[in-house]
Amino acid sequence: MKTEILTMLRETEGYVSGQELCNHFGVSRTAVWKAINQLKDAGYEIEAVPNKGYHLISAPDIMSAEELKSNRKTKWMGQEILYFDSIDSTNTKAKQLAEENYPSGTLVVADRQTAGRGRRGRNWESPQHTGIFMTLMVKPDMNPNNASMLTLVAALAVAKAITEVTQLPAQIKWPNDIVINGHKIVGILTEMSAQIDYINHVVIGIGINVHNESFPQELRETASSLLLESGKRFRRADIIEAFLEHFEKYYEVFLETQDLEALMNEYNRMLVNREKFVRVLDPKEPFEGKAMGITKKGELIVDTWESRKLVSSGEVSVRGIYGYV
Amino acid sequence: MKTEILTMLRETEGYVSGQELCNHFGVSRTAVWKAINQLKDAGYEIEAVPNKGYHLISAPDIMSAEELKSNRKTKWMGQEILYFDSIDSTNTKAKQLAEENYPSGTLVVADRQTAGRGRRGRNWESPQHTGIFMTLMVKPDMNPNNASMLTLVAALAVAKAITEVTQLPAQIKWPNDIVINGHKIVGILTEMSAQIDYINHVVIGIGINVHNESFPQELRETASSLLLESGKRFRRADIIEAFLEHFEKYYEVFLETQDLEALMNEYNRMLVNREKFVRVLDPKEPFEGKAMGITKKGELIVDTWESRKLVSSGEVSVRGIYGYV
Repeated sequence: MKTEILTMLRETEGYVSGQELCNHFGVSRTAVWKAINQLKDAGYEIEAVPNKGYHLISAPDIMSAEELKSNRKTKWMGQEILYFDSIDSTNTKAKQLAEENYPSGTLVVADRQTAGRGRRGRNWESPQHTGIFMTLMVKPDMNPNNASMLTLVAALAVAKAITEVTQLPAQIKWPNDIVINGHKIVGILTEMSAQIDYINHVVIGIGINVHNESFPQELRETASSLLLESGKRFRRADIIEAFLEHFEKYYEVFLETQDLEALMNEYNRMLVNREKFVRVLDPKEPFEGKAMGITKKGELIVDTWESRKLVSSGEVSVRGIYGYV
Repeated sequence: MKTEILTMLRETEGYVSGQELCNHFGVSRTAVWKAINQLKDAGYEIEAVPNKGYHLISAPDIMSAEELKSNRKTKWMGQEILYFDSIDSTNTKAKQLAEENYPSGTLVVADRQTAGRGRRGRNWESPQHTGIFMTLMVKPDMNPNNASMLTLVAALAVAKAITEVTQLPAQIKWPNDIVINGHKIVGILTEMSAQIDYINHVVIGIGINVHNESFPQELRETASSLLLESGKRFRRADIIEAFLEHFEKYYEVFLETQDLEALMNEYNRMLVNREKFVRVLDPKEPFEGKAMGITKKGELIVDTWESRKLVSSGEVSVRGIYGYV
């Protein structure tokens, strides 16, 4: 009921009367009053005016399922949302839910991860009250070979969402990071469960540094947060909502052709590596060149002195030669 | 202790004395006697001769962890074995164990599956006391693009194991079935959990029809069992043991080059499609031709009138034009 009350308060310009709420849910005044008080306890500022009703003044920076669901404006993305104060890893949880037949578009959000993971089994710092640790699970009907492009679709949606909510110049570091002013703000870890010609599910784990005031020594040079870059505090639920909306839109476009044809121009405009010199850490033979953008298959185009090369994200990493990126 | 007693009985030509067993395990005569009786209750025929000791005459057709472990002759494949009388799906269980950090080479075996799965979400018939339903979980350090070849490695190992134990002419129907006299005996369902450039784990699910005396109407034309093809009953544990041994050997060879270069001749010799006319159900444009064998990447070579084509198992299915295969 709290989710629905929040949704009604959000959708109403003026006041929602207590009687309306009683009628809507078929409960007593006391029950409504109790739910309103629980919302206040959770940090919602709700004005109560006699003979007029309730009005939502402001929402706290929490990511509870009620908050996220009442904030949601998508058609189906995030249709199921599960929130945890603390969890081992949102990717692990999302995989379990997929096996338990949760629907495509299920979102898992946590305030803290005790065993958050980055690429190739690395650790991902996930202290409480500082970030967004979320995993979106989807079940696309497509060939497993195309799944790696979903990382790029997610990166585009996150970059757009951050720019929209914070006005900061978020850029994509191909294939799976978001940077602002050259500092890493977001990491994306995509994992897939597949049969040879059939995707069971894909989980897209996204870690966003939001309120961090500092970082451990070894990350200080490379990492940053939205707070450090802007001096402001943003509501994490607003970023999640904006991400879901953008991702829903891009995902549907992507699924139509199962490539990035329709998205690559937008992606390339946000690509921090674009027209920059990069070093491609090819395990066989590292090389340097100028990154030109991505292909519709999600490969990075790198021009060396001799030739144009297409770099696939499954095989190499890419590092900027100048600066942090 | 039952596993170790069985192992000692199996490794000893003559008799193992009760005193030896007491000393070995540091337990009383009564404890040994109790364990021996439990084994007898499970169906083991154990002779007990005063002043000589115990001797294993025969083992029943059971697949308990004790039976499988004491039967095991591998170096590390099947180092952990879990047996279930009934389970939803051995693939699902093996995936869970992988996430719980069970080691590469863990084997899950069941006498019955209540929700056994075939390719593309199809059902797999798994009634009790008739078959082997098992899943081997491995964690190969290789690029996810190469994982689909593991299905072929497993098919080769199963075909060899069946031929060895039963003397029946098992053949491989590319990419993931085993047939005998044109009837399907084995299906293989490989599933992978992967990051973009990193395999978390691969589970190889194998269903073998062993003691089936008949099949449902819709399968009668195409499916068969080892019993129906030979008129004999084989011990399922012996087939599992032979499979583990062959798979261990082939897996190690495969991992060295991460292709089938060293195995393709052996594979092609067992390939039922070889030099047969096949119809390739390419979703874009189906075509017919003569299957010639596999490449070192595991593709099926099909010669049409115009050209030689390489068929990848992730994209198409192949059907024999004449007969059942």
